[in-house]
Amino acid sequence: MRLLRVGPAGAERPAMLDDEGRLRDLSGVIPDVGPAFLSAGGLGELPPGLPVLDPEGLRIGPPVGGIGKIVCIGLNYHDHAAETGAPTPSEPVVFMKAPDTVVGPYDDVLIPRGSEKTDWEVELAVVIGRTAAYLDDAAQARDHIAGYAIAHDVSERAFQLEHGGQWDKGKNCATFNPLGPWLVTADEVPDPQRLGLRLRVNGEARQTGSTKDMVFGVYEIVRYLSRFMTLHPGDVINTGTPAGVALGQPDPKPYLRPGDVVELEIDALGTQRQTFRAA
Amino acid sequence: MRLLRVGPAGAERPAMLDDEGRLRDLSGVIPDVGPAFLSAGGLGELPPGLPVLDPEGLRIGPPVGGIGKIVCIGLNYHDHAAETGAPTPSEPVVFMKAPDTVVGPYDDVLIPRGSEKTDWEVELAVVIGRTAAYLDDAAQARDHIAGYAIAHDVSERAFQLEHGGQWDKGKNCATFNPLGPWLVTADEVPDPQRLGLRLRVNGEARQTGSTKDMVFGVYEIVRYLSRFMTLHPGDVINTGTPAGVALGQPDPKPYLRPGDVVELEIDALGTQRQTFRAA
Repeated sequence: MRLLRVGPAGAERPAMLDDEGRLRDLSGVIPDVGPAFLSAGGLGELPPGLPVLDPEGLRIGPPVGGIGKIVCIGLNYHDHAAETGAPTPSEPVVFMKAPDTVVGPYDDVLIPRGSEKTDWEVELAVVIGRTAAYLDDAAQARDHIAGYAIAHDVSERAFQLEHGGQWDKGKNCATFNPLGPWLVTADEVPDPQRLGLRLRVNGEARQTGSTKDMVFGVYEIVRYLSRFMTLHPGDVINTGTPAGVALGQPDPKPYLRPGDVVELEIDALGTQRQTFRAA
Repeated sequence: MRLLRVGPAGAERPAMLDDEGRLRDLSGVIPDVGPAFLSAGGLGELPPGLPVLDPEGLRIGPPVGGIGKIVCIGLNYHDHAAETGAPTPSEPVVFMKAPDTVVGPYDDVLIPRGSEKTDWEVELAVVIGRTAAYLDDAAQARDHIAGYAIAHDVSERAFQLEHGGQWDKGKNCATFNPLGPWLVTADEVPDPQRLGLRLRVNGEARQTGSTKDMVFGVYEIVRYLSRFMTLHPGDVINTGTPAGVALGQPDPKPYLRPGDVVELEIDALGTQRQTFRAA
């Protein structure tokens, strides 16, 4: 099932794409695609005749509301670790983004004031469906995943790496986590390690990867994180990005400038497209 | 004003301490002490005869609900930076805790499974009252603060420092952020850089500091953070801890064990007391 949330920012309503690709209003069935819905385990039997929504002019928001936390995995593709000059990690590298960074998949992204190094990162996002703590193995981890979406883990490299301390400083700027368009339920993604990821900047291919090249796979990440924190329904995990970011290019590195357009794509999960603007 | 939230975890209701120290029920006046209330700027004229609550047996929860993010400042006291062997930072060191780590000031704290190095940190918490981005100076920063509380920034040092990557891994275990008992409104804390902080473990003094020894003061922290992220009403900033943590002691370091009792105190902000238990 492809779930989404449509309407003005902060006032989205739940919807789905039906088998014919029509947008169907779910607001008469569930209040939101959020923690309560995700932990209830599905839509159950849908009433017939759900209203069809006209997509023309309708904003698509992030496909999950009420996100409690966003946990991010760094350097999780062999080729991306190499391009940044970092060794391949022996354990998942973990950092955090605040839920208030999330915007819709086609919303503008703001380049922060003073930024010279705003960079792109296409990522597979995992959405948690059941409270997870101290999971034993991959099979348990799989059972705690509600579904998958595209995340754009926008990053400011100077803020992240040149101002002392931890990475979070370059990861939490407003609008830095476009999510969606869809939450594709886990039953439709039988193998999350076989998804192609692509990102283009102004039409030029910049990232072309596959989740098969992850250092730590999706189920292992969920299992590992559950040792260190409790994962709750509606939590999101950004599972890392493949090679091709601006940071990994020869000088002068092609960091994003106002007016640049970034398009992201993951097999079965749809596409994103953002215009970058000055904050 | 001293605001608090009382009742079962997840179902707290708003309350206040009146001038005589009696607990008064605010649930007929405001729905919660959360972002909407904080951004509205205060209680206004209170109706007479607010019900008095019997504190006997009543749980005190965290004094703010609906927290959007917790931003933490590391190594922000000269003596604490020294005890950890780190240089005094030239810019604030920033990391994140998820809001789901927050518990009440007297709730049990869980020592994670596999933990050998669970450590204490008494901290002054700043609660944001108005949306803050790109603030110009300390005076502007001050105007965006709703109030102050005690935070216990519980930390697992092996998770934080010995498993690769960023600190967040040792900061986000369940129950790792006791907050409260009170949100003391900013008008009652005219100088946040003159507050004594104290922490005892099983009755033994471990931390004795003053916010005057911060490397970066409260207003500067708020101004600085607003360059890198938007701060929203109900966001919490943990402003760092003074010397005296277990990590800074000679071997064998006195990390917390099940049954240990930690008491925290900050001038004008009340006290906390937690028993540590095995998760």
